[in-house]
Amino acid sequence: MSMSMANLGPVVDQFIGFYYPTFATSRAALSILYRDTSLLSWEGSQFRGSAAIIEKLASLPFQSVSHRVATQDFQPGNDYFLITITGQLLVDGESNPQFFAQTFVLKSDAGVFYISNEVFRLVYG
Amino acid sequence: MSMSMANLGPVVDQFIGFYYPTFATSRAALSILYRDTSLLSWEGSQFRGSAAIIEKLASLPFQSVSHRVATQDFQPGNDYFLITITGQLLVDGESNPQFFAQTFVLKSDAGVFYISNEVFRLVYG
Repeated sequence: MSMSMANLGPVVDQFIGFYYPTFATSRAALSILYRDTSLLSWEGSQFRGSAAIIEKLASLPFQSVSHRVATQDFQPGNDYFLITITGQLLVDGESNPQFFAQTFVLKSDAGVFYISNEVFRLVYG
Repeated sequence: MSMSMANLGPVVDQFIGFYYPTFATSRAALSILYRDTSLLSWEGSQFRGSAAIIEKLASLPFQSVSHRVATQDFQPGNDYFLITITGQLLVDGESNPQFFAQTFVLKSDAGVFYISNEVFRLVYG
């Protein structure tokens, strides 16, 4: 599968349109995005593989969360593509949003995209 | 060259220790980090290849800039590694720092690392 810029846009929109709403409603359902080789860095802690990653995401200490994506960039690589997000999130009805930056490296396996690498950081002073 | 986690740390430190000081003192000298296939997204605009990238960086409308790296994460891929940075920067002696997020995908060519992908964004409300 060729990953030119021309056909990346819809894939990126589809990915973002799945990831954040699913993160908000059912974090465990994100498991289909990860493989045994997937890596997640979450606020400096590293997790490897779908099971460990979902266990981490499911254990995050908030009940509700909503993301507002402010910027999204994407670039192709030889056999991957890169998505970077900045935005704000609100947890458990707080009124002060927190800024975040999130990076994904996606790969395609038999036409199905999965997350090879993911890094999440809150951004603050 | 195997890019395991164990030997990435010094490469990441070396990269960051070169990139930001060189960005501050002589942006054109960053050209050794890019190849003709390198991609840069800078605040939403895309540039391809060392010449176009350096032309963009050199034309940024400030005289002086200093970065403070707040967080750095890195992960290996099969033939690349990922570095993500968040931090603050100050331009031309302003007193209010701006938050930024920056992502690099590095590759190795005959033992020399170069930037395959780079994305820069200011982070603000």
